[in-house]
Amino acid sequence: MNDADVKNLLAQYRASIDNIDAALVHMLAERFRCTKAVGVLKATHGLPPADPAREQNQIARLRRLANEAQLDPDFAEKFLNFIIREVIRHHEAIAASSSSETVNAASSGAENSAASSNGRQTS
Amino acid sequence: MNDADVKNLLAQYRASIDNIDAALVHMLAERFRCTKAVGVLKATHGLPPADPAREQNQIARLRRLANEAQLDPDFAEKFLNFIIREVIRHHEAIAASSSSETVNAASSGAENSAASSNGRQTS
Repeated sequence: MNDADVKNLLAQYRASIDNIDAALVHMLAERFRCTKAVGVLKATHGLPPADPAREQNQIARLRRLANEAQLDPDFAEKFLNFIIREVIRHHEAIAASSSSETVNAASSGAENSAASSNGRQTS
Repeated sequence: MNDADVKNLLAQYRASIDNIDAALVHMLAERFRCTKAVGVLKATHGLPPADPAREQNQIARLRRLANEAQLDPDFAEKFLNFIIREVIRHHEAIAASSSSETVNAASSGAENSAASSNGRQTS
């Protein structure tokens, strides 16, 4: 392979990476739209913010999907935890914004849970 | 909204989240296929592992796409950095595996760069 071929192949890989990154950003934006809606729904209806059984199922499923796709399952789990940290940040913002408008026991609950070290809410 | 409606709406959001997560895992798997191929290409042809100009363009583009999709651009940048850390881990593995087979100056370069605190390689 000469230098031009190498450069061309590199450019092709990069075009794929750029397309994938655009897809990832849009998928993430849509995921956060859903989790924000879940946060509002739970706060409004007094549902507990965390659901450990649901979270365990999500982790197990993502690890299985990662295996099938030849992605490191440990990375898939780290990725889910990375997303969850951002979800918690959003829920803290929702709870703070609710409590500044009307003092709402349900949303205060969400805020406390999100602020605690074990308080996590995937969806 | 009664309890059944709330439960039903929550289940619908969760179904969307699960579909999105499956898409994310597969997109990530494909992205790592590309970056692994880039790592091998660069190591084989003695190209420098890091390309700071490319990386700056990627960050600026992802931030712009995030803005358009109403995703926090700071989160998009954090996300790219999270992925890059995994890419570096893969490149270290590629370099270690190359050097255990044949001592290759190019792949050693990739390993050194990946191991240094500033050595990063997005693609």
